[in-house]
Amino acid sequence: MSTDASPTPAVDGASAVPGTPDPALLEELVAANRILSDHGVLDAYGHISARDPVSSRHYWISRSMAPALVGAADIIACDLDNNPVRPGETRLFFERVIHGEIYQARPDVMAVLHNHSPSLIPFCNSDTRLRPMVGSAAFLGEGAPVFDIRTVDDEGDLNICNVAQAKGMAQALGQHGLVLLRGHGAVAVGDSIRQVVRRAIIAESNAKQQMQAALLGPVHFLTESEIEYAKRQKPKDPDRAWRLWKQRAIGGNV
Amino acid sequence: MSTDASPTPAVDGASAVPGTPDPALLEELVAANRILSDHGVLDAYGHISARDPVSSRHYWISRSMAPALVGAADIIACDLDNNPVRPGETRLFFERVIHGEIYQARPDVMAVLHNHSPSLIPFCNSDTRLRPMVGSAAFLGEGAPVFDIRTVDDEGDLNICNVAQAKGMAQALGQHGLVLLRGHGAVAVGDSIRQVVRRAIIAESNAKQQMQAALLGPVHFLTESEIEYAKRQKPKDPDRAWRLWKQRAIGGNV
Amino acid sequence: MSTDASPTPAVDGASAVPGTPDPALLEELVAANRILSDHGVLDAYGHISARDPVSSRHYWISRSMAPALVGAADIIACDLDNNPVRPGETRLFFERVIHGEIYQARPDVMAVLHNHSPSLIPFCNSDTRLRPMVGSAAFLGEGAPVFDIRTVDDEGDLNICNVAQAKGMAQALGQHGLVLLRGHGAVAVGDSIRQVVRRAIIAESNAKQQMQAALLGPVHFLTESEIEYAKRQKPKDPDRAWRLWKQRAIGGNV
Amino acid sequence: MSTDASPTPAVDGASAVPGTPDPALLEELVAANRILSDHGVLDAYGHISARDPVSSRHYWISRSMAPALVGAADIIACDLDNNPVRPGETRLFFERVIHGEIYQARPDVMAVLHNHSPSLIPFCNSDTRLRPMVGSAAFLGEGAPVFDIRTVDDEGDLNICNVAQAKGMAQALGQHGLVLLRGHGAVAVGDSIRQVVRRAIIAESNAKQQMQAALLGPVHFLTESEIEYAKRQKPKDPDRAWRLWKQRAIGGNV
Repeated sequence: MSTDASPTPAVDGASAVPGTPDPALLEELVAANRILSDHGVLDAYGHISARDPVSSRHYWISRSMAPALVGAADIIACDLDNNPVRPGETRLFFERVIHGEIYQARPDVMAVLHNHSPSLIPFCNSDTRLRPMVGSAAFLGEGAPVFDIRTVDDEGDLNICNVAQAKGMAQALGQHGLVLLRGHGAVAVGDSIRQVVRRAIIAESNAKQQMQAALLGPVHFLTESEIEYAKRQKPKDPDRAWRLWKQRAIGGNV
Repeated sequence: MSTDASPTPAVDGASAVPGTPDPALLEELVAANRILSDHGVLDAYGHISARDPVSSRHYWISRSMAPALVGAADIIACDLDNNPVRPGETRLFFERVIHGEIYQARPDVMAVLHNHSPSLIPFCNSDTRLRPMVGSAAFLGEGAPVFDIRTVDDEGDLNICNVAQAKGMAQALGQHGLVLLRGHGAVAVGDSIRQVVRRAIIAESNAKQQMQAALLGPVHFLTESEIEYAKRQKPKDPDRAWRLWKQRAIGGNV
Repeated sequence: MSTDASPTPAVDGASAVPGTPDPALLEELVAANRILSDHGVLDAYGHISARDPVSSRHYWISRSMAPALVGAADIIACDLDNNPVRPGETRLFFERVIHGEIYQARPDVMAVLHNHSPSLIPFCNSDTRLRPMVGSAAFLGEGAPVFDIRTVDDEGDLNICNVAQAKGMAQALGQHGLVLLRGHGAVAVGDSIRQVVRRAIIAESNAKQQMQAALLGPVHFLTESEIEYAKRQKPKDPDRAWRLWKQRAIGGNV
Repeated sequence: MSTDASPTPAVDGASAVPGTPDPALLEELVAANRILSDHGVLDAYGHISARDPVSSRHYWISRSMAPALVGAADIIACDLDNNPVRPGETRLFFERVIHGEIYQARPDVMAVLHNHSPSLIPFCNSDTRLRPMVGSAAFLGEGAPVFDIRTVDDEGDLNICNVAQAKGMAQALGQHGLVLLRGHGAVAVGDSIRQVVRRAIIAESNAKQQMQAALLGPVHFLTESEIEYAKRQKPKDPDRAWRLWKQRAIGGNV
């Protein structure tokens, strides 16, 4: 990853550099930024990206700005070393290394979100694991892993700024759908923009409900059999929620 | 219940097939969908139905869509085997079997709601029962029952998709006004659309208050005498809340 | 108190029957209804009244309706036996006996509110008393009293519908500013409409903060000396909050 | 500090009396008032000030009013003895002594906020200290100090009204970024208006998350090394949040 001051054009033998961006993909990413802001899953910080559907070694992400304000013209392409394709780009998220490293480690992943969802923070700083309360949260499995940056280095920075830290985070993520970051936030992944948006919104509500349930005594989570079943299933009507969320966040007919 | 792909017209000897829908009933169902969405009792998922007032073996429910977006034209009739009256309907809720089985088991029930109300989920996954904090929640009785789908089958699916599962749920509901579904949500019933809406909104606030009360030490719930008294009474002015809720959800004069 | 169906005109030798209502008083009561609704301290139920400033044996209250929808034309006069001054009024709150009994028992009280403020309900059903966290809540004293209607009768009705119940409630209130009602809600009193609105809003936030504080361990409340000091003081700028709340609830310049 | 009734013009040999106010500074203060109100960090009470960038012995603050309603014309200059520069000003915050004493004790401080942020109150009345959950809250250090006004006098007033009380508070603040006030609220300081706004918003969310985390068992806070690292760093893009918050609070392009 080059520094923000002197970005280097991507040189990538394995796949073509993306040319004209796909308007539908950009619109989907804009909607994702707005929906996640509307749900309070993103605030002024955090970022969502999508792997280019043709050139698998590139991804699309907004310039450094508040997600609620992102428009299609703010979205740029980076290679998997997190260098912008177009020379001269400077307003870049310094934690974008999260995205490149996950796309390298997880060929199945088509979208990545880094955020600081309010109800997830308590689980980042606890020995109690975030576990699924309902079927739609089954992607949390036996409990979301927590990445402790001190396993990579102990300089005191909690942000994921370099390749070693991002590799450590990707290793903690493993084959899970979401990894919590101690003292920091979370990273969610999915096979599409819509899946990662859905996972982030469900993780937030599940976390809140799990904390409330702790007030009532021991909590019964999904069984192993229920987790396995849900993972095998496709959601029956995944676009139903997307349409509602998009209308609420953006308005108009969708 | 036929599959979504090839619906079968209802053949129902016991009652007439509903012809032209009653505009007032449809308007009431639309309002219920909007009010429950406005209160956060319904989100993108869940559904409310009303038994046909003339043809007791039919009920009205929206096509599969987010409740907040439902209009009168989206509401269709099904028989108590959950087959749509009009041939060719395909966009149906796969969990509509909940409605037909309850209307069969409970002749007194005129409206059914299935939802995933956020403050109810902790009680779905706890040994602590949801109990009435105030008189308007007396329909919760000595505690809402919890249906565990594993009492029917243990394949790992938490959704209520077939007749056996729905019969199990209806049995757990018994003569109660609301049944919780482990790892899933809730089903509320009533003698009218307005009563079921009222019950769902009160259940949500009661659940939140019961969890908060647990922070303060032992909780004193309604006494048996108070529960019995409240069940015998009609609410003094049930339409007062409905008018307010409808104005907030839809606007205009009501 | 006559029944709703056949109201009796007030015959009150001790003070003149109020004639033309004071427009400023009505406007203040309308604002109070809107402000309390806007804060979630009132929902579809509950009512606020003001003693007539000239005829001390009469009070003003809206007809039975959702507080958020009250306008000046909806406000009527009742005597302290809770009979409407104008013959033929029928849409009356059945719990208005609360108001008359308090005005009789507490000559200092100029405004009365009955509500079901969400964060107060847990304290209605707990042995933990609601106590002041900050100076503005000092009116809660050493802890708000809780009225248990079973001390009057044990028929199972939690509502305050007759004089005996209201007298019991007024006795529990004593010289306090607020009394909680077991399994029901609260009644707040004050020397003006603005004071009772202020107390109800502060009671709600104080209750929420006290429950949260319980999560952190033992809670330190105001000392006896601080409670006494605050009771002796007038609020420095009581209209500052009123102006803000009114603008938010009603809009326009205030 | 003169009384509100007879303000005295400032006589300050050490620095020039500010003449024409800086429009950019006033706009920044107006935005801060609106943003903090929009976040619920300020309600009808509380106040934010900024030290004059040229005349270090003067600061700017609104007249006594709800922060949400403040405009540029409502902002006046005071000297560090809290006397208004312009003779005849009477609508002043009686707790403005907080500002003058901090500017005297802390030459590094350029902005001061006094508020009653809802999630901070529980920590004001607890032995559990408010500690950083995430890197952006590292300014809370090993735990925010709590000022108990009884260490100065025990007359029962919780407000900070005189120099002795304000000096006690400033001593408790020490070199911290925020001090809690027992039974009252908080005071936050910063090297700019934007930093103090940022700290107040983060303190509120951190407090809420710390209370929720307590539900899950022992809480892991930032390590000493992480606190020290964060204190050495400048935030990477501090204006990103400001732009978003300002647009939400005020609207228009920012």
